[in-house]
Amino acid sequence: MSEWEKNVRRVIPYVPGEQPADVNVIKLNTNENPYPPAPAVCEAVKKFDTSVLRKYPAPDAKRLVAALSDAFEIPEDQIFVGVGSDDVLAMSVLTFFNGKKPVLMADVTYSFYDVWAELFRIPYESIPLNGDFRYELSDYLRPNGGVVIANPNAPTALVEPKEFFEELLEKNPSSVVIVDEAYGDFYGWSAKGLLDRYENLLVVGTFSKSRSLAGSRIGFAFGSRKLISYLNDVKFSFNSYTMDAITLAVGEAALSPRSREYYHTMTEMIIATRESAKKRLAGLGFTCTDSRANFVFATHSVIPAKEIFEKLKEHKIYVRYFDKPRIDNYLRITIGTDDEMTELYKALEEIGCRQS
Amino acid sequence: MSEWEKNVRRVIPYVPGEQPADVNVIKLNTNENPYPPAPAVCEAVKKFDTSVLRKYPAPDAKRLVAALSDAFEIPEDQIFVGVGSDDVLAMSVLTFFNGKKPVLMADVTYSFYDVWAELFRIPYESIPLNGDFRYELSDYLRPNGGVVIANPNAPTALVEPKEFFEELLEKNPSSVVIVDEAYGDFYGWSAKGLLDRYENLLVVGTFSKSRSLAGSRIGFAFGSRKLISYLNDVKFSFNSYTMDAITLAVGEAALSPRSREYYHTMTEMIIATRESAKKRLAGLGFTCTDSRANFVFATHSVIPAKEIFEKLKEHKIYVRYFDKPRIDNYLRITIGTDDEMTELYKALEEIGCRQS
Repeated sequence: MSEWEKNVRRVIPYVPGEQPADVNVIKLNTNENPYPPAPAVCEAVKKFDTSVLRKYPAPDAKRLVAALSDAFEIPEDQIFVGVGSDDVLAMSVLTFFNGKKPVLMADVTYSFYDVWAELFRIPYESIPLNGDFRYELSDYLRPNGGVVIANPNAPTALVEPKEFFEELLEKNPSSVVIVDEAYGDFYGWSAKGLLDRYENLLVVGTFSKSRSLAGSRIGFAFGSRKLISYLNDVKFSFNSYTMDAITLAVGEAALSPRSREYYHTMTEMIIATRESAKKRLAGLGFTCTDSRANFVFATHSVIPAKEIFEKLKEHKIYVRYFDKPRIDNYLRITIGTDDEMTELYKALEEIGCRQS
Repeated sequence: MSEWEKNVRRVIPYVPGEQPADVNVIKLNTNENPYPPAPAVCEAVKKFDTSVLRKYPAPDAKRLVAALSDAFEIPEDQIFVGVGSDDVLAMSVLTFFNGKKPVLMADVTYSFYDVWAELFRIPYESIPLNGDFRYELSDYLRPNGGVVIANPNAPTALVEPKEFFEELLEKNPSSVVIVDEAYGDFYGWSAKGLLDRYENLLVVGTFSKSRSLAGSRIGFAFGSRKLISYLNDVKFSFNSYTMDAITLAVGEAALSPRSREYYHTMTEMIIATRESAKKRLAGLGFTCTDSRANFVFATHSVIPAKEIFEKLKEHKIYVRYFDKPRIDNYLRITIGTDDEMTELYKALEEIGCRQS
């Protein structure tokens, strides 16, 4: 090893789901939205005056923040935006989790949380979810340097109710609690209603799922003025201009009243497809968790998940398989269009999935 | 202070130049390009199929990397891309500067370097440039955990020659040397020619200056395969998808042979305006450094820089003033169009700037 390599931060990165170049695949592996973005997004891009690209974008992303404020009824100084919710979460971990006590997270949850902790050398504890993949509140009442919970959780697709978060926050006044609601719109309840009561609560959202803009990289967070101000200080110590000028226009367009109506309809469609998927998959011998997200988490009674994963790939259907303890016999399947799901069921039948 | 605040990373952020909302100002304060992006950029945006935004962008930014590879004749696995060169530099500081010895940087240079060091709690030393604002090579031969040098330097606009970097690299095999060439195209020489000889060299560039795409947030770095691989590991431990799908298309369009020709012409125009600016400003009583960037660094023989800065603002002309030791009687003035510069000279005359 060269001498300079001794100073290198060595990390094991998060591995995102595959993005196959072949467009003729059915892609149910990264929890993308099967429907296109709102028409206003297309219009915003078409009419974007590219001559302004010579100038830096607004460093405070003011118009996007104002649009979020309007859509979510949260004051502007309680809103933070970033390059997808991953950027928002990475900045939050860097900002808020600087104590010596471990940050608490589940063993089965978004697998980027421990990657960020490792990256920034933050002590953390992965606490096993219970046998039903649910959070046990008592596990999160021990001394800690922070808590991060996804709700709905991924890849389990399960949610915890309002009471869980109220008690969690009530008993954790000494550390920041992050609730990652990337899939929140498919559930319907948001912890943002608790913001007025807890200064140490950060609620994170994204445009990648219910707003069908994974390609535009827009994430956001709501929190107390203090929390958002600290977060902005770190963001401005990292990169003054994180949000592309076109992206800002895209985000704004996606929040217009008309766009919100459009997305509401799409979300309802995805929820309906998800509910029918639970039934269809049960009929094919799968057990699914009670998903409140835009994906299902399913295990088959006979055929190993890995085998189904590989055979589906031969059928040009991509789903997500995690070769990890406790979940290595599960598949995470994104809810596609009804047509895509019909193709999925057909392929599963061909693979031999049936009720035993 | 609340208990949770004790775990917060407190930092003093970098303050970028103002982005006034008023479009009727002459903006010479953030080293933006006065000319619009290449026509191909506009076409790429207009014809962009927004329906693909529902999907995540290519996490490896493959097509943009391929276009950079083609334009700069650097193999693809020696190229890293990020959200502007600030993102590239922040990731590089995080990746490469993990030793216990101080990272070496100049006292008068891009003022984000020490902000990143503070953010990531990396020891560093600000070494005074000599009386002519030039680097003294001997200062950079002491034991160190890394070196970061801007060439051309900002805000001084001065450059060091090839021989300086050759000797610097020859004598610093034990740490990573970052050469920040944000303004490199206005100089003409690049340290990338030294990549084959030094595995520990990282050369950083941006689309924000010579490519007139500050609004699109695209930066890049060239380095050895090893260096780029380490950098990618950290990037993928931070955010899988940093580059917006539209931004990737914009970047690719900006690198087509036709676009490169366009940008070459614009760069030549800016250099010509810069050279005439040096003369005109001298005639108005300023002393300028021998700028090789798209800005000049000027001090007036009689009127304090801060006063000129404020009076220019009243004339709706924004330049950059740094209230910092050694440079608090200097202005950093971005090279605008010839018309904008004529307005500047006129305003300076009105303010009372003349040869004494």
